[in-house]
Amino acid sequence: MSEVFGELDTCITAPQGFLAGTTACGIKADHGVQDLAILASDVPCVAAGTFTTSSTRAAPVLLCQERLKSGKAQALIVNSGNANCATGQQGIQNAYRMTELVAAYLGLENTLVLCSSTGIIGHQLPMEKIEAGLKQIALSKEGGKAFSEAIMTTDTYPKRIGLEFELDGRTVRLGGVSKGSGMIYPKMATMLSYLTTDAAIECDWLQSELRAAVADSFNMISVDGDMSTNDTCILFANGLAGNTPLNASHPEIGRFQAALRYITQYLAREMARDGEGATKLMTVHVHGAPNKDDAVKVARAITRSSIWQCALAGGDPNWGRIVAALGASGCTLQQDLFDIFLGEVQVVKQGAAAAYGQQQAQAAMAGSEVTITLDLHLGNSQATAWGCDLTHGYVEENTLYTR
Amino acid sequence: MSEVFGELDTCITAPQGFLAGTTACGIKADHGVQDLAILASDVPCVAAGTFTTSSTRAAPVLLCQERLKSGKAQALIVNSGNANCATGQQGIQNAYRMTELVAAYLGLENTLVLCSSTGIIGHQLPMEKIEAGLKQIALSKEGGKAFSEAIMTTDTYPKRIGLEFELDGRTVRLGGVSKGSGMIYPKMATMLSYLTTDAAIECDWLQSELRAAVADSFNMISVDGDMSTNDTCILFANGLAGNTPLNASHPEIGRFQAALRYITQYLAREMARDGEGATKLMTVHVHGAPNKDDAVKVARAITRSSIWQCALAGGDPNWGRIVAALGASGCTLQQDLFDIFLGEVQVVKQGAAAAYGQQQAQAAMAGSEVTITLDLHLGNSQATAWGCDLTHGYVEENTLYTR
Repeated sequence: MSEVFGELDTCITAPQGFLAGTTACGIKADHGVQDLAILASDVPCVAAGTFTTSSTRAAPVLLCQERLKSGKAQALIVNSGNANCATGQQGIQNAYRMTELVAAYLGLENTLVLCSSTGIIGHQLPMEKIEAGLKQIALSKEGGKAFSEAIMTTDTYPKRIGLEFELDGRTVRLGGVSKGSGMIYPKMATMLSYLTTDAAIECDWLQSELRAAVADSFNMISVDGDMSTNDTCILFANGLAGNTPLNASHPEIGRFQAALRYITQYLAREMARDGEGATKLMTVHVHGAPNKDDAVKVARAITRSSIWQCALAGGDPNWGRIVAALGASGCTLQQDLFDIFLGEVQVVKQGAAAAYGQQQAQAAMAGSEVTITLDLHLGNSQATAWGCDLTHGYVEENTLYTR
Repeated sequence: MSEVFGELDTCITAPQGFLAGTTACGIKADHGVQDLAILASDVPCVAAGTFTTSSTRAAPVLLCQERLKSGKAQALIVNSGNANCATGQQGIQNAYRMTELVAAYLGLENTLVLCSSTGIIGHQLPMEKIEAGLKQIALSKEGGKAFSEAIMTTDTYPKRIGLEFELDGRTVRLGGVSKGSGMIYPKMATMLSYLTTDAAIECDWLQSELRAAVADSFNMISVDGDMSTNDTCILFANGLAGNTPLNASHPEIGRFQAALRYITQYLAREMARDGEGATKLMTVHVHGAPNKDDAVKVARAITRSSIWQCALAGGDPNWGRIVAALGASGCTLQQDLFDIFLGEVQVVKQGAAAAYGQQQAQAAMAGSEVTITLDLHLGNSQATAWGCDLTHGYVEENTLYTR
């Protein structure tokens, strides 16, 4: 993939017509930390989103779901440090108020502004700080990097990427940012991620393509098996590249689809790698499943097994825990068929211990990236999921959070 | 309940006609640790079992499921230190061989002997050690305590209980033992638990009653959300108390049902309390659910939320994580109705922060037992689940296990 696309450094402001800016408005206790960010397009965009399926969805999620029914948006405001979740009617009013303030500040229609929040649950937003803060925000073409930093909570580094490729002979750019890094087990959604492109795209096709890409990326990661109340992924497409609008019959959709997969999987993988307390990225490939659902079940079950995540932290090739997670996944299985590999080392053959060297198995677990491959030998479906280890760092980080 | 039943100290050998014994046969590395145990009845029993629903079930589970189709059993052999799981055809042969050795040693029919294994996955049983060891086992009426210790793996204390009550004017006893304490998230089953009674019970009724009791006890606990390959609960009823056999129309079944609930819930709760690394027992009561399924979903989702388990470890009343687990549970919910209490302190009212003192909330989290109560205000169904906190001790214990 990397030979097809040139990677850009400016992420969500790389596509034509997108600007971003941030400020430190004081929501986060650490004085001076950037915690409020705006992304805006020069022109209205076709837009689509996927969101948490939680039944305790946060107020900004409800707002985005309502407004994106139109398939249009032009700007987004995000705060970190407060999730605006479990905040009742006042929380919903505050979410709408945030977008009105942005609309007034930038001279846009209210209905074209979206908002997101991430941070602690159950506290009302400090609206006076937000109102004062957003007027300090200056939008620029260089603002994408600062935006990717301002949305972080416990992330240790920002996740951002930009690609450039050709469509209809026009140069098209696609950029993305995301943040993790605890309470990560998205289901039909993700944590916060924003994608921009200057490609022209038909609205219906955009929605279905975004869903498909999210299913293979953000929905395939786990840090701790805990689905969040605020998971959000939104793609803005402003059409300024001037290509023929993309739809299912466009001859070059494959290139756009590949770029979207590349960006969403990159961001998803980085969120797993930077999971709270994580020291190792785990990639689980499942082959030979009887259907896609079973492949997904198995891959995700292994990434979310606490007891296997601990073995991973210790570099311990205790593959019995993979067998347990496989069995608990609810997939179709034949016990005398499946194989398991740690890196290149086959540790299970036809459901029982293979002949392997313990030193080789330990070596396969030793690095900062560990790959687990399962072949169920029951069909042709496959899936890949990403996760991380469970360490003292995770416990440390989550034992004292609100104090 | 405790006023109805006298608690006995001798657990599974308290009912008439049950004997037990143990030995250290050398499966466990720690020399001299008891790791092989036999339970036997003087006469054949009506017996029922519930087992893991894992698709990587261990060999002894397959054996028990096959043999219990008859509804009869008389003895059981259990080893700790090796799970006899992912061991292929040889593992199954070894499980059958274990029961044949016991049958020969005790002069019983092969088909009336069951077996269980618990410990590391993927290693073949050392059959010569088991064969030599079991001939050292002397069965006795006092053997129940030693049995409850010999089945432990990472448990820090044995779980055992016995009750005595009247049925048809006869004295009936019911005893039980169980072991935890990692890879604990039973589904239609449990970790190892054995129950004995001298009550006479009809076979079909025994099976359905055991399922019902397990659903409200072992199936409602979680240590780490990881379902095991070896979960087993078996109840042996030898009828020596001489009561009219229990069935659905027996006038005094309520007393037996209450005793069975008491014992299974006691053992389940102790397994949660003694979860790997646990310092706090968490009890989650859910009220006002629209149906039982939803009540169970919510209660279990909260006990298995890693991020909430960490807050519990720190005594941090960060109830936003309960809201997130509630939302992720998949239950029916109305966001402006639900209430949450930590101990007696109401922290959430109608879906948003209640007025409460932070010190009171912290006090409710401070003890070694923390109760969380949710009222969804959507119906009359309820459920209770038990779990524990997630601590450095869990990570420590599971980071290096096989080495």
